Amino acid sequence: MRLITILTDFGTKDSFVGAMKGVIASICPKVHVVDITHEVSPQNILEGALSLKFATPYFPKGAIHLAVVDPGVGSARRAIAIETEKAVFVGPDNGLLTLAAHDQKIRRVIHLTNRNFFLEPVSRTFHGRDVFAPVAAHLARGISLSRFGKKIKDFTKLRLPAVRKRAKIIEGDIIFCDRFGNLVTNISEKILGKGNNLRLSVGRRKIFGLCESYSETRVGGLLAMLGSSGFLEISRREGSAQKALKAKAGDPVKIVL
Amino acid sequence: MRLITILTDFGTKDSFVGAMKGVIASICPKVHVVDITHEVSPQNILEGALSLKFATPYFPKGAIHLAVVDPGVGSARRAIAIETEKAVFVGPDNGLLTLAAHDQKIRRVIHLTNRNFFLEPVSRTFHGRDVFAPVAAHLARGISLSRFGKKIKDFTKLRLPAVRKRAKIIEGDIIFCDRFGNLVTNISEKILGKGNNLRLSVGRRKIFGLCESYSETRVGGLLAMLGSSGFLEISRREGSAQKALKAKAGDPVKIVL
Amino acid sequence: MRLITILTDFGTKDSFVGAMKGVIASICPKVHVVDITHEVSPQNILEGALSLKFATPYFPKGAIHLAVVDPGVGSARRAIAIETEKAVFVGPDNGLLTLAAHDQKIRRVIHLTNRNFFLEPVSRTFHGRDVFAPVAAHLARGISLSRFGKKIKDFTKLRLPAVRKRAKIIEGDIIFCDRFGNLVTNISEKILGKGNNLRLSVGRRKIFGLCESYSETRVGGLLAMLGSSGFLEISRREGSAQKALKAKAGDPVKIVL
Repeated sequence: MRLITILTDFGTKDSFVGAMKGVIASICPKVHVVDITHEVSPQNILEGALSLKFATPYFPKGAIHLAVVDPGVGSARRAIAIETEKAVFVGPDNGLLTLAAHDQKIRRVIHLTNRNFFLEPVSRTFHGRDVFAPVAAHLARGISLSRFGKKIKDFTKLRLPAVRKRAKIIEGDIIFCDRFGNLVTNISEKILGKGNNLRLSVGRRKIFGLCESYSETRVGGLLAMLGSSGFLEISRREGSAQKALKAKAGDPVKIVL
Repeated sequence: MRLITILTDFGTKDSFVGAMKGVIASICPKVHVVDITHEVSPQNILEGALSLKFATPYFPKGAIHLAVVDPGVGSARRAIAIETEKAVFVGPDNGLLTLAAHDQKIRRVIHLTNRNFFLEPVSRTFHGRDVFAPVAAHLARGISLSRFGKKIKDFTKLRLPAVRKRAKIIEGDIIFCDRFGNLVTNISEKILGKGNNLRLSVGRRKIFGLCESYSETRVGGLLAMLGSSGFLEISRREGSAQKALKAKAGDPVKIVL
Repeated sequence: MRLITILTDFGTKDSFVGAMKGVIASICPKVHVVDITHEVSPQNILEGALSLKFATPYFPKGAIHLAVVDPGVGSARRAIAIETEKAVFVGPDNGLLTLAAHDQKIRRVIHLTNRNFFLEPVSRTFHGRDVFAPVAAHLARGISLSRFGKKIKDFTKLRLPAVRKRAKIIEGDIIFCDRFGNLVTNISEKILGKGNNLRLSVGRRKIFGLCESYSETRVGGLLAMLGSSGFLEISRREGSAQKALKAKAGDPVKIVL
């Protein structure tokens, strides 16, 4: 049995996601559908790409990851599928799929052009329902990826903002804020090394040392730790670091080791 | 394998929808359950009816659509099931089911009275769990609709506000606002005809011409287009028309062709 | 086919729940997963325990209830599974599982220590993904509960605040507020007895008599009734009692019979 995950910025108030699931159930009734999230901030491609990157490693081999954050819908932006060593990603060619796909090693990228696998007529505003959901469902039925279109090389790649490291200084950015107010940075465990004895600055606030668990700090205290995403995160014990620091995605973070 | 969709105004914070799914799984463990939405504005029957109308056409033949927006729960309002050429709709007799069911051609409407298919005792406030979910699950098990109660003719019909068209003027209303701030009107493609050269007024703002895609307008610009729902929509490129226009469901829209 | 329900305070914006479902699908691809809610107020154990208590009675025998509201993650708090006469509950040992499990009669409580059934490495901040989801999935595969760890007796029990009843006076508390603004108290039908002729005080407001349905009061009127949860609730017809009364969980309620 194949599995399709869905990630969008469509929210759960409207019937957009319901319509997509109806299309999938009509084409491939037995497929198992799992929502990753539909609450990506509207049209925020980086946020969607990160959510996809954080969730997809945990799904079984052969999963189909359908993702739609698509400000360019109806324009000339292409529809693509990316085959990796572990999965297939389906969505718009705007970088959304590429952080997650890159982690799994990309085998080939297909420009989706075969209208036999689209809903007819294709609307100008809702390719989630009319292009991406039917393609994902036909893939789940076992249709070979090569039948959907031709290979391309020049797909859009999204990259995280670069981290600057020189001597004992690391400069990075907050890239994501989760529901608990944890501020996820682009500073990975690998870049950080074993520097537990660090001094982190964000805005005018400083945090000393790297914790291994929330309980190492007093309730309400700020702390830095390697989060479940594999990146350095700034948290507040039983509170929101985002609120305490009035910080947001894009704000710089500086570390002195 | 049968499929049950669920649409409610119960939200996802409380355990109401979880309890309904538990009831369904207890009666018919193998049925495939798909959420359309649970974020219908509390007790807003028209909004629920429109979400149901927009999503249900995409589901396969034989689907059971369970919908509960039910301000009259516990009063004398009846519980009904509507059989169409394609599906069965289950919910309160307050019009909620009728826009979607009407589109699929109604075959018969059954007043649900057979308490053998309800949970006992039936609470006064939660027929979603005690009446509608068990009925949908028993239908999914294959129980014949005629066993649930008698046919009725006088069920409540919901109608969209009428559109006035005379000569080159069309007067309609905003009926729905989606997550992106798109304002959906009751002016269908059929009523509009091929009038691309229109002038649309909403409040004091005017929009000229009909677009085919968001990219035909500058970022932040307002536009009118036929939306994925099949109705004329007012949108703002990479923004919210609702916020820009401070408009809401019920506001009038005027078109001069 | 086994069924896993999931309740968390992780929200649906981030990819936490998606990652958990990926872990489950990787270990036990055919299991049926049902969300109870992910919108428990962050780190509010009592609220999560009540949602679990209200929803789980409706699920079939043999269900596995996975619940994570876990302010102590990464500290010394234990991971446990509670087997009842009807189901297995998996989550942190902080009381979250115990209101629901108690209702189903507890057979044994296991301290989850066998790392063969965890994801490796176990992060310090996300045991939902690394401990509880894999344990639930291995249980769904049919692994015997005794293989996960040893029996314990000293698990954390959560209790509802006590209700004081003397002669004709009952003093209780609001314990929960739902999406509709209904205020759920800890006063059960059993404690209340057949006292329809009551006078209820909450703050400075008084409500007279017990209703059986919203329609017994005028639109906008406050009423007291036995809710679908089995507890006395304060509601407002076609409105929010919470907003009308500016009340919240923890506020006292007094009844004179």
